[in-house]
Amino acid sequence: MLKGRKKRVKILVTGGAGFIGSHVVDRGLADGHDVVAVDNLSTGRKEFIQDALAHPQFSLVEADIFTQPDRLTEVMAGCDVVFHLAANADVRFGLEHPRRDLEQNTIATFNVLEAMRANGVRRIAFSSTGSVYGESSVIPTPEDAPFPVQTSLYAASKLPGEAMIQAYCEGYDMQGYIFRFVSLLGERYSHGHVFDFLKKLTADPNRLHVLGDGHQKKSYLYVGDCIDAMFCALSNATDPVNIFNLGTDEYVEVNDSIRCICDHLGVTPELDYAGGERGWIGDNPFIFLDCQRIRSLGWAPTRTIRESIVHTVDYLRSQPWLLEARS
Amino acid sequence: MLKGRKKRVKILVTGGAGFIGSHVVDRGLADGHDVVAVDNLSTGRKEFIQDALAHPQFSLVEADIFTQPDRLTEVMAGCDVVFHLAANADVRFGLEHPRRDLEQNTIATFNVLEAMRANGVRRIAFSSTGSVYGESSVIPTPEDAPFPVQTSLYAASKLPGEAMIQAYCEGYDMQGYIFRFVSLLGERYSHGHVFDFLKKLTADPNRLHVLGDGHQKKSYLYVGDCIDAMFCALSNATDPVNIFNLGTDEYVEVNDSIRCICDHLGVTPELDYAGGERGWIGDNPFIFLDCQRIRSLGWAPTRTIRESIVHTVDYLRSQPWLLEARS
Repeated sequence: MLKGRKKRVKILVTGGAGFIGSHVVDRGLADGHDVVAVDNLSTGRKEFIQDALAHPQFSLVEADIFTQPDRLTEVMAGCDVVFHLAANADVRFGLEHPRRDLEQNTIATFNVLEAMRANGVRRIAFSSTGSVYGESSVIPTPEDAPFPVQTSLYAASKLPGEAMIQAYCEGYDMQGYIFRFVSLLGERYSHGHVFDFLKKLTADPNRLHVLGDGHQKKSYLYVGDCIDAMFCALSNATDPVNIFNLGTDEYVEVNDSIRCICDHLGVTPELDYAGGERGWIGDNPFIFLDCQRIRSLGWAPTRTIRESIVHTVDYLRSQPWLLEARS
Repeated sequence: MLKGRKKRVKILVTGGAGFIGSHVVDRGLADGHDVVAVDNLSTGRKEFIQDALAHPQFSLVEADIFTQPDRLTEVMAGCDVVFHLAANADVRFGLEHPRRDLEQNTIATFNVLEAMRANGVRRIAFSSTGSVYGESSVIPTPEDAPFPVQTSLYAASKLPGEAMIQAYCEGYDMQGYIFRFVSLLGERYSHGHVFDFLKKLTADPNRLHVLGDGHQKKSYLYVGDCIDAMFCALSNATDPVNIFNLGTDEYVEVNDSIRCICDHLGVTPELDYAGGERGWIGDNPFIFLDCQRIRSLGWAPTRTIRESIVHTVDYLRSQPWLLEARS
């Protein structure tokens, strides 16, 4: 990371034992940096950071960044950059517990920024979401799309994170990297449609219940490509506030995704559609981001969406403990 | 309010003893509605609701919507619409206490929405700010301007309010009216540049210290026109989420504003400029909103910016207690 800066830096990763965070941990260590992972292990897993735990330049701090801001401030001492990836990533069931998004996403991000301010840490990378565009009138959607209207509590708790980071950059001379992800796939993926479909098809290969009408258009990105993109941005983008969409230059319908999974598994289930344009309230029927900005820095994804789906199915089948652990 | 709906409704106004809130209270009572004001009286003043306090259809609840969400939920029972105007409106000194914006603006708005959900109240009007556009690339700035970057903690605490309201409208079948104000002037105004200049010139008519270089371009709206616009929107706009800029079709430089005040007072102070394009960190050097959307509903302002400034100076001179009360 950090072209033209000191070679070895200290990175703090919130959500460092999670799906994305554990990959950032691995990449940070591989690049020779010191890495501190902070995770409350609510959805993060020690299995994801098994290699890191054996590494002399790594430490895991079991702490909750919402309820333990003082502990966060303490362990951030001496860090050069924060990857703030801890979040309540449960988009679909947000309406059942709106406080969770406020606390774990919005207030937790405030805690991270205050811990940075207390420690004089200037750089932050933040996992936002393409969902902040709501149902955009412009598709593919660029970073400067028309001012959006939020349709999910999840995005409505990530947008404040973006906003606070931007205001802290302006007011306290910090440097922010805001990444608006599409959904990610790949190793350690354990939440989302491929997971759900695979789990259902493993239980019953003859029948598959599908939320919505199957025509929802979604974009996915391989987690390895996502990590490359984030590190590329931190090395090459130099503005006080740097905002990047991260995705591929394509999308698939849910039906395409199902076909891809079924072909790979060799099953031909009867499809049972719930119907409707959206899978749930707040579901966006068409997510497709314009990623020219990050591509202009030289980054490009290495896997297509279909390749990522197949790769993820293979990964999950190699990790039956993971497929069984989550409902 | 509420064309084509029941004639007499119950309105809850958070910040009901404040500058804008007290005017909403008066208007609600004048229109024959029942009105409950909730105010912690930190910046709100009983003097502003003197007439209302004598009205049989009015009640004041002294409560803090951030620290007393249960009390808020209790007093909201039976209400039809909420005007959520309570806020920490101290834009300039936000960097000295970032937690205040989070708590009093972002979390307080969450508390209001949760109280509404608990009581089955569906309609909310919210005082956002034109500052959410940051330093927009499009001026005059329309509601669907390019996705902005926040430059102040204040706006970064109002934008989450907007976002949560939008997500609640989508998820819980509410109806939201989001107003992005320019700065307001008029009766009960007690915070801002006209106040500061008048206070300084009253103390010393020969010298005036000016933040920035005086060329900052700002927009103002008369509070009476603002109240008319809000009630017009609630009566005529019918979408689940309705977003309106509120301002005049003009702007003035800080220097114009100073000239206007000095001419009216008959003083010719020496102007002492702090210098720089911005008055403070996060100050926006050019605020000018495109207000065609609210105008298309038939609303138009009755006072120009200069008329509002003179009117405000006259008001403040008639209320020396107010001019002296605030630093």
